[in-house]
Amino acid sequence: MTERTARQRYSLLRRRIDAGLLAIVRETRPPEMMKVTKHVIRAGGKRIRPVLTLLSCQAVGGQPRQAMHAAVAVELLHSFTLIHDDIMDHAPTRRGLPSVHALWGVDSGILAGDLILGLGYDSLQRTGSPVQIRLSTRFTKALLDVCEGQAVDLQFPGRRSVTVREYFAMIEKKTGALFRLSTALGGLIGSGSDRQVEALERYGVHIGRAFQIQDDLLDVVAEERAFGKIVGGDIREKKKTFLLVRAMRKAKGSDRTSLLRAFGGDVRPAKRVRIVTEIYRRLGVLEEARKRIHHETTRARESISGLPRNNGTAMLGWIAGALEARTF
Amino acid sequence: MTERTARQRYSLLRRRIDAGLLAIVRETRPPEMMKVTKHVIRAGGKRIRPVLTLLSCQAVGGQPRQAMHAAVAVELLHSFTLIHDDIMDHAPTRRGLPSVHALWGVDSGILAGDLILGLGYDSLQRTGSPVQIRLSTRFTKALLDVCEGQAVDLQFPGRRSVTVREYFAMIEKKTGALFRLSTALGGLIGSGSDRQVEALERYGVHIGRAFQIQDDLLDVVAEERAFGKIVGGDIREKKKTFLLVRAMRKAKGSDRTSLLRAFGGDVRPAKRVRIVTEIYRRLGVLEEARKRIHHETTRARESISGLPRNNGTAMLGWIAGALEARTF
Repeated sequence: MTERTARQRYSLLRRRIDAGLLAIVRETRPPEMMKVTKHVIRAGGKRIRPVLTLLSCQAVGGQPRQAMHAAVAVELLHSFTLIHDDIMDHAPTRRGLPSVHALWGVDSGILAGDLILGLGYDSLQRTGSPVQIRLSTRFTKALLDVCEGQAVDLQFPGRRSVTVREYFAMIEKKTGALFRLSTALGGLIGSGSDRQVEALERYGVHIGRAFQIQDDLLDVVAEERAFGKIVGGDIREKKKTFLLVRAMRKAKGSDRTSLLRAFGGDVRPAKRVRIVTEIYRRLGVLEEARKRIHHETTRARESISGLPRNNGTAMLGWIAGALEARTF
Repeated sequence: MTERTARQRYSLLRRRIDAGLLAIVRETRPPEMMKVTKHVIRAGGKRIRPVLTLLSCQAVGGQPRQAMHAAVAVELLHSFTLIHDDIMDHAPTRRGLPSVHALWGVDSGILAGDLILGLGYDSLQRTGSPVQIRLSTRFTKALLDVCEGQAVDLQFPGRRSVTVREYFAMIEKKTGALFRLSTALGGLIGSGSDRQVEALERYGVHIGRAFQIQDDLLDVVAEERAFGKIVGGDIREKKKTFLLVRAMRKAKGSDRTSLLRAFGGDVRPAKRVRIVTEIYRRLGVLEEARKRIHHETTRARESISGLPRNNGTAMLGWIAGALEARTF
């Protein structure tokens, strides 16, 4: 599959998902809330999770469209977490647009999140798969995992130190659970064997980690406009990231003192970003993040090496590569 | 069935539900969140919705215990709405105890609500019923209805007038949907016929209305301690209730002016409660509420008159009577 074909294929799936999302969001009641739910959907995003659902279905021999309702459900579950997390993180923007609570207040944010989660379950239940009950069980498991991860994440800023292990355990729940769900649902709907579904889940876990670390990395190195959020936003908000937990582990002497001071005291956010970014570079944690992304995308590709060779698996392989090359 | 037997039977079911709730809440992750979810469960309540689920199952010939997971799910869905609604309504207390967000902050309130909704779906999915998919569909429909009702309710205080019809349409969604769900799930799990399930749903709708109007009435006439919340709380917070929409409809001349001034201007809350309660009495809307409760409980009993005579239907009849007699 050529790069161009793969990109076109991805765009096509993404457009179909956007259409599916818009269709279900149009059913928002009361109509006054529709401007809120539409805003969330229109804010966009790469739709990587629902695309993984469609491709995972195809990878085990199904048709991508069989998994469309589930794919839309996964994206709605993701959107629900973004809306509520943005309230808890006091995030003024999301994907370059004002966040829901910034536009309509916290009350509407809470309610819009609840509604979108409800629409997510609604969409999932439209799948009409023989394994419908297993889909619902997985979906609920992921919802509980995401809440658990968010609860742990909320406790982190109040803690003096977070180990690399603790950070990964949190990330595994908060963002990993959704990637795993995305691929598992597609595999189940496509009538994959238990073994195939497990392989897809492993792929999802590794891609999820790579995606998260790249997200942390882009926060520091990306161009503001292209990335749609403020560079250094994680540092400004004192968020624990892969870069920070690694830097805290490696920093000695004056670097360690500077790091602790930057995150502890009354250092102005812009200055904090400058100091911390400089330390990240000096300690080599940016390079370490790139290596880790390579490791995870390699493991992702290995996970699905036993699946049939078809357009679905080819696209899953392409996504791993594109994620690593940061062309994604 | 004697009054005493009925009361004992109700207590027994309620204790079983409490045990079921505690069992699932003990699975809260991370453990730090368990104090929050346990607080919600321990705050208590009459558990009328889950009791209706168990009794509806029995009414169509099933065993109450078959519907236990679904009953627990209904109460968790109800608890989820209370936690999030309390944040939106800035309610400092719930069932006589501090509300979740008052104790642990808005962030924990949002998250605890999300977690408890997830646990609700989790519980429902444990039912293992042949009609599992229909249970999930109903549950999600109720979730969406409740959110819709809450969204409409949030818009009410900003509006000059709300018609009786609009008020009932809102209540039908915000609280009626859960009562309807409670009885429908029990009927479905007990393998009731479509006709029987519909009869139980009608019973649920009427009981839900009676329950809500009594809630509005008790806000004005109840003893503070017995009721576990501040008397006149709805008036203090300018909430639209059955009493208010009826009073606005009936009030003329100086009563109308006083009502509009009490809810419009800078009248102190305690004074507002005094003025409004006095007008309610003068206009006879308290008596009207009592009549309406009688009407709805009568309709509830009629709805299930075609069901088999057994302990389940006897208890459903008793609940309607107890609700009317305000001994419930």
